[in-house]
Amino acid sequence: MKHNFGAGPGILPHEVLKQAAASVVDLNGIGLSILEISHRSVEFEAILDEAIKLVKELLNVPEGYSVLFLQGGASTQFALAPYNLLPEGGKAAYLETGVWANKALKEAKFFGETMVVATSKESNFNYIPKDYVIPTDAAYFHTTSNNTIYGTQLHEFPKSPIPVVCDMSSDIFSRTINVADFGLIYAGAQKNMGPAGTTLVIIKDDLLGKTGRKIPAMFNYQTQIEGGSMYNTPPCFAIYVSMLTLKWLKSKGGVPAIEKENDTKAAILYSEIERNPLFKTVCAKEDRSKMNVCFVTENPEHEKPFLKLCDEKGIVGIKGHRSVGGFRASIYNALPITSVHVLIEAMQEFAEKNK
Amino acid sequence: MKHNFGAGPGILPHEVLKQAAASVVDLNGIGLSILEISHRSVEFEAILDEAIKLVKELLNVPEGYSVLFLQGGASTQFALAPYNLLPEGGKAAYLETGVWANKALKEAKFFGETMVVATSKESNFNYIPKDYVIPTDAAYFHTTSNNTIYGTQLHEFPKSPIPVVCDMSSDIFSRTINVADFGLIYAGAQKNMGPAGTTLVIIKDDLLGKTGRKIPAMFNYQTQIEGGSMYNTPPCFAIYVSMLTLKWLKSKGGVPAIEKENDTKAAILYSEIERNPLFKTVCAKEDRSKMNVCFVTENPEHEKPFLKLCDEKGIVGIKGHRSVGGFRASIYNALPITSVHVLIEAMQEFAEKNK
Repeated sequence: MKHNFGAGPGILPHEVLKQAAASVVDLNGIGLSILEISHRSVEFEAILDEAIKLVKELLNVPEGYSVLFLQGGASTQFALAPYNLLPEGGKAAYLETGVWANKALKEAKFFGETMVVATSKESNFNYIPKDYVIPTDAAYFHTTSNNTIYGTQLHEFPKSPIPVVCDMSSDIFSRTINVADFGLIYAGAQKNMGPAGTTLVIIKDDLLGKTGRKIPAMFNYQTQIEGGSMYNTPPCFAIYVSMLTLKWLKSKGGVPAIEKENDTKAAILYSEIERNPLFKTVCAKEDRSKMNVCFVTENPEHEKPFLKLCDEKGIVGIKGHRSVGGFRASIYNALPITSVHVLIEAMQEFAEKNK
Repeated sequence: MKHNFGAGPGILPHEVLKQAAASVVDLNGIGLSILEISHRSVEFEAILDEAIKLVKELLNVPEGYSVLFLQGGASTQFALAPYNLLPEGGKAAYLETGVWANKALKEAKFFGETMVVATSKESNFNYIPKDYVIPTDAAYFHTTSNNTIYGTQLHEFPKSPIPVVCDMSSDIFSRTINVADFGLIYAGAQKNMGPAGTTLVIIKDDLLGKTGRKIPAMFNYQTQIEGGSMYNTPPCFAIYVSMLTLKWLKSKGGVPAIEKENDTKAAILYSEIERNPLFKTVCAKEDRSKMNVCFVTENPEHEKPFLKLCDEKGIVGIKGHRSVGGFRASIYNALPITSVHVLIEAMQEFAEKNK
């Protein structure tokens, strides 16, 4: 039994994997694989409809927003957001909270002027900047809701006078959000929603068509809306598994129920890190992520032996990102609390051994 | 037992589906699903390496070309080809052989001047134009090797004074090609290579970096080459299943062996259509596709009852595209000749009944 703390592509619910595997051989008894049916078949159209319905239901998406399943990951959205929302000669504002926020910023520069409203770069992004002013003359304000590498998270979204664009790749569906507070939300599926290969986009319709820019079909949200995410062949299997995962989430009680579980998982793990003399966290307490718990050993020589112990206990994917070092326990929706208990026990056992 | 003649996402080899399903639960006994491992894991890096190696081997890709697995389908490549290859103020030449060629042409207009070298639009694309002159002053000449909707195929590629860009989505790996004759080859996976969700790109490296255009990271072939198709999280599962399918192809004897099978499948099916008094083909004999066999009933009233008979015999995906009508039997690599026999028998039985 493995305990998968990988940062993404990350753990998926066991029952989702079992059903997905069955459908790779035979989808719902139709005698064909989910991999070899037309995206225009009644079967796949029902899957896509269901996936969109579940997103709307689980996130309470209000009227006036479109839900899309696209390809290319959040990195493609880094370019598509300004392509679609930044007018010729306009300006976009960015909150720089890490490498991914910075990559988003870089792509925006291809399309117009950018400004960094605030940054925590000077301290290797170990906190979320606060008390900044969002300019009223920018087309949008871009944020990253959770910073996988550093283990920080925006626990409160700023009130903004301009539309907020948010990369929610690593915490979407993990906590309650108010979609109406955002102009554009995007998220690669491979952390909390499904496997790698599809990207969720939630866009406020009335923000579109205002840039004066001509946009190739595949990069144009309007084309994708009109095509119902099927302007061309969509990534059928990734959408199918996302649909199964969202259905699993609904059966668990939806976002409020999983948020409660996530809160508990994060609380017990941070509490052990604080209690355990051998470990410490690296980022500001008030900005700690409930998805990616980053921590290091007080003594650098303890790092390798602890990794070895984890390996013996079936704990995988826990090595920290090279830019931070130490450990990163990603505790996404699908990670059972029992796996967190196993990690905590390993930390306690390690502390006992190294007293 | 179904006989899957769908135009795509199309049939995949049964053994590939079985192994893919097993890996959705547990990849090679590592205790984790192919869907929940990091793209930076040794397991996935080996899969991607193997997929690239198989493409190079099966197509004899010469030195100086890069092989990429991207996202977004051929429709994204319609834009990326001119984005990367058409210089500011330059011109691109297109052969218009159908709806997909036309869509490619439309996207190029966002990036520069375009010219249609030849078209068969006037006769609903039922033949491949020949005897055209490729301009020497264009940046590239764009072709579509196989036209899924109309059932036509370029059996011979033109000698070109400029780099040839080719959309091979529906016949890649089905026949021997000389990669050195092309500057850029691209293909959505979902016909002959794997499931929907990844796109193969084979690009001649020295064509890049000459447009004078600044290109966002995800749209820049150079970034994707430098990132080894992992500039961001790739569509892991679609690449994995493509790798399995290419491995299956290799075990069958590679492209020359499958080409022979494909020739036989096409020959016996076209021969039945010619022999059978109730059916006829719709496109020029010399341009007939060996991948998508399009045909209609002589008597329009026979269409529905024949579809019904097919349905009874487990023949699926055979309805023709709405712009052509009638039937389309897609006989991709993975379709066994036994399925073609079943279709031929159904046609014969239908002719007997309707004498």
